[in-house]
Amino acid sequence: MTLNTYSSKLVENAVGELSKLPGIGRKTALRLALYLLKEDKIESEMLGEAIIKMRSEVKFCKICHNISDDDVCNICSNPKRDTTVICVVEDIRDVMAIENTSQYNGLYHVLGGIISPMDGIGPNDLSIGKLVERLEQETVHEVILALSATIEGDTTGFYIYKQIRKFPVVVSTIARGVAIGDELEYADEITLGRSIINRLPYENSVKP
Amino acid sequence: MTLNTYSSKLVENAVGELSKLPGIGRKTALRLALYLLKEDKIESEMLGEAIIKMRSEVKFCKICHNISDDDVCNICSNPKRDTTVICVVEDIRDVMAIENTSQYNGLYHVLGGIISPMDGIGPNDLSIGKLVERLEQETVHEVILALSATIEGDTTGFYIYKQIRKFPVVVSTIARGVAIGDELEYADEITLGRSIINRLPYENSVKP
Repeated sequence: MTLNTYSSKLVENAVGELSKLPGIGRKTALRLALYLLKEDKIESEMLGEAIIKMRSEVKFCKICHNISDDDVCNICSNPKRDTTVICVVEDIRDVMAIENTSQYNGLYHVLGGIISPMDGIGPNDLSIGKLVERLEQETVHEVILALSATIEGDTTGFYIYKQIRKFPVVVSTIARGVAIGDELEYADEITLGRSIINRLPYENSVKP
Repeated sequence: MTLNTYSSKLVENAVGELSKLPGIGRKTALRLALYLLKEDKIESEMLGEAIIKMRSEVKFCKICHNISDDDVCNICSNPKRDTTVICVVEDIRDVMAIENTSQYNGLYHVLGGIISPMDGIGPNDLSIGKLVERLEQETVHEVILALSATIEGDTTGFYIYKQIRKFPVVVSTIARGVAIGDELEYADEITLGRSIINRLPYENSVKP
């Protein structure tokens, strides 16, 4: 089924646009279009307008590059946050993930990507220079590198470390190890090895 | 990860609307929203406008109920089609599927669903009355029931058959049997049994 026979250009056009989205092929796009055709007109209008409005009005926080409705995001502008700690992450999904843990009360710095020569992304495509500026201007005691445990993540972390080690800040990285709930025998050997090297005093590791 | 921490209401709103689509949860919706934020603004505008325009401007053919940009769809208005044969299908996806086979040159009648008491869909929710009207007004020689090989499909087919058997038309149903390319040993017994009962003279079945 090649789905090249549309009796409506309007539907064909909507399917074409929907199928440009990642992970959505033409069959799924058609299913979505037919769903919208069956639903109330207001549903399609709300969806279409939410997409257009989001793209045209959303801003990136001028301090940490997180998505924001204002010039400064609600994390950077929150007076209850600890402004002396900056957590460096790849993208805004990581900010959401860390916020959801409720274990962190500092600020963020969103790189907007990760160093990946394969994808043509170098250090200058990321907001590393802005991080250096923040360290020059703000009083920061610690920078936490919360990057993916991949070669790209490690490369990016090392690059950032070299750029910021001249500042009087502690540079730390999130713990790597066997995930909570994982059984030891199924952990890969590199992770398990790292978790042995980076072992903690028992009293420090157990949380009530 | 509950993803309830959005630093932008605009993004939260777009994710909420996207996640109403079938098969798209909040995680996928967020991925789509972040994709749109990375792409050019024009991409989001084209997507949003295509959805709104499709829903507000698309029509349903007043003859066969297929989707259409005009009052009569391009199949019903095509003078090369055989107007004496009507193929009854559940929805417009089936029209596309049959059109893609290039094996059919008649017209269609789109029911807009299938009789399914479990989902609260009865005969009066479908365009069966309109089909009867077409048989009263047009010269039709054959009605082909091309419905799903399910209990609902069979029920719907039987209901339609009872409504239209008073007309001088041949009522046929698409062939059920072992699919092309399927191995016999893996065919289910009901399908295989049906394909034995409905066997054809060898000369009729082999197509060059």
